[in-house]
Amino acid sequence: MSDLILRDATTADLPAILAMLAEETIPANREADPSDPRYLAAFEAIEADPNQRLIAAELDDRVVGTMQLSFLPGLSFIGSWRGLIEAVRIVADLRGQRLGEQMILWAVDQCRTRDCKLVQLTSSATRTAAHRFYARLGFVQSHVGMKLHLRE
Amino acid sequence: MSDLILRDATTADLPAILAMLAEETIPANREADPSDPRYLAAFEAIEADPNQRLIAAELDDRVVGTMQLSFLPGLSFIGSWRGLIEAVRIVADLRGQRLGEQMILWAVDQCRTRDCKLVQLTSSATRTAAHRFYARLGFVQSHVGMKLHLRE
Repeated sequence: MSDLILRDATTADLPAILAMLAEETIPANREADPSDPRYLAAFEAIEADPNQRLIAAELDDRVVGTMQLSFLPGLSFIGSWRGLIEAVRIVADLRGQRLGEQMILWAVDQCRTRDCKLVQLTSSATRTAAHRFYARLGFVQSHVGMKLHLRE
Repeated sequence: MSDLILRDATTADLPAILAMLAEETIPANREADPSDPRYLAAFEAIEADPNQRLIAAELDDRVVGTMQLSFLPGLSFIGSWRGLIEAVRIVADLRGQRLGEQMILWAVDQCRTRDCKLVQLTSSATRTAAHRFYARLGFVQSHVGMKLHLRE
């Protein structure tokens, strides 16, 4: 297999990234048509913020994975930054080939480069295989993740 | 009881906020002397970022609570912003008086003002009373929270 390239996403990657997001969402119908201008506005908000990165994982000229990294300043741990990993997706036909492992290890390395004290993420409570995956990479399930939806 | 005032923290609030952070941390010795310049650097990083807010809760001219709000752009949910609540603390002698409820409801309202689709937080797995508190305010424990520490 060729090498996985991990890089910041461009607008040209958006269709592939949005297809991955739409494929695996709860509830299944929560996303809109990829041409909805709100997606482009969100991309531009991420791109404009030096503490946000939308990542494209590319294999053989195809975008096969995505994730978002956020770098958060904070007072805790003697004023440490922390990294947050969100919206991790891999195309269905390439799962089980350790691409996710490459993506997360790369993300952790980016957090080190930004001098983060820790990296955090949440994973749906039902996705126990994902929890084992992250545990193998050193993540400790020390917290519960709670969400409050403000609108439909 | 007087009204709780919720506002952005200033450097004058830092000693009180750092005392609350140091009091209730895991591990207990993870914080440094409040005069450590890294705390001021972190405060300045938060203050410089329009998507970060360090909040002071003031009662009768005393800082009695704190939390950090982060506003995160993202592609999911048709390009929705999300709010993240971190580092919630209340002084020991004023717990059990629903100040936390006022703080979180105010934080949720700030997230609405910023047009967030949802508000998320993590809470230590052992703090079951905190989970019930957040559940009463409408938060759903849908996720697990995992952390990887990159350095001591």
